[in-house]
Amino acid sequence: MNKYKIVSLVLSLALLAALVRLVYSTEVRPAPASEADVVLRNIHSRKSVRSYTDRAVSRTQLDTLVRAAMAAPSGRDMRPWRFVIVDERAVMDSLSARLPKAKMLADAPAAVVVCGDLGVVDQEGKPSVNWVMDCSAATENLLLAAEAMGLGAVWTGVYPYEDRMAAVSAALGLPEHVVPLCVVPVGYPEGDPRPKSKYKAENVHYNGW
Amino acid sequence: MNKYKIVSLVLSLALLAALVRLVYSTEVRPAPASEADVVLRNIHSRKSVRSYTDRAVSRTQLDTLVRAAMAAPSGRDMRPWRFVIVDERAVMDSLSARLPKAKMLADAPAAVVVCGDLGVVDQEGKPSVNWVMDCSAATENLLLAAEAMGLGAVWTGVYPYEDRMAAVSAALGLPEHVVPLCVVPVGYPEGDPRPKSKYKAENVHYNGW
Repeated sequence: MNKYKIVSLVLSLALLAALVRLVYSTEVRPAPASEADVVLRNIHSRKSVRSYTDRAVSRTQLDTLVRAAMAAPSGRDMRPWRFVIVDERAVMDSLSARLPKAKMLADAPAAVVVCGDLGVVDQEGKPSVNWVMDCSAATENLLLAAEAMGLGAVWTGVYPYEDRMAAVSAALGLPEHVVPLCVVPVGYPEGDPRPKSKYKAENVHYNGW
Repeated sequence: MNKYKIVSLVLSLALLAALVRLVYSTEVRPAPASEADVVLRNIHSRKSVRSYTDRAVSRTQLDTLVRAAMAAPSGRDMRPWRFVIVDERAVMDSLSARLPKAKMLADAPAAVVVCGDLGVVDQEGKPSVNWVMDCSAATENLLLAAEAMGLGAVWTGVYPYEDRMAAVSAALGLPEHVVPLCVVPVGYPEGDPRPKSKYKAENVHYNGW
């Protein structure tokens, strides 16, 4: 064999090896999870996060959360939800001081307060009878969005506890017709919080009780 | 150039071309959507689906829906949710006949009835004050899971309407301590239902009202 043949052969083999390796690496890459898998995994991964790092959460991120919340279903399409985004230290501390069950607000960089506006009325002048449901569905959207974005959050209950409702209204200067449902601290999770498995087969009945 | 050199050269060029093409096709493939993108898109894509094709929904699919529902947060971890899966035609028709606002049940292959169990009590013997919120968050999980799975569903309100609650309790033989919150018909969407955009900047306040 002369020099040319040897060089050509080596070059061919090298290219062939590269090709085989590339095809192989492409094929063994696991198939991307289906969108349904991603969504279901997110639902099952959501957990209550009560400790946060110092890392800030941006207005853009908080805006993404409330946009997700407003995509919830709403009874008779009345959309009585309102949101107070809190990201000033003084307001966070004021909320924390007034809410013994939500002390973690003192360590969180931000929070979203989900409220129902009883000033939203139907054609008969009556407020929504569904505002708790609408705002709860909105809160769940918010929590799922936070989980997906790598944020940690937790639903801390305000309604129907009169003392907590008064405390939040005072801290935020809510008008009388606006009722706070819950306060959701938001931050980057500290530690490694894990979701609970809450499935229970006995909770499911078929075609009647 | 002799025969060997020509063959080697052609072979090398062919391999090089194949390699370049493969690398190129790999690189121009759009990056898969991030998990956050998929989850947010699912939240914003969820819509009320009120018309369904004849295609059946399996027990496995319905089971996936109630599993997602049970991953919701629950006040004081009481988990008062209960689910009645309905996939028998007679029971679907019975519900439809009794619920004038949920006539679409007659056309749906299945439904999930989300209920709160007031028999679940705390250490003081009191039922959850959060059952409406817990069951609403669970319902939202169920609706989002359905959307992700290519199914269509809609929250039809039962609680707090006494007549509807009585109708569902009668149709399903619910015990007195079990309160139906909503009935969610489930099927494959007929037509091309679209989500509403419900975002409203005025619904968002910052650090106070």
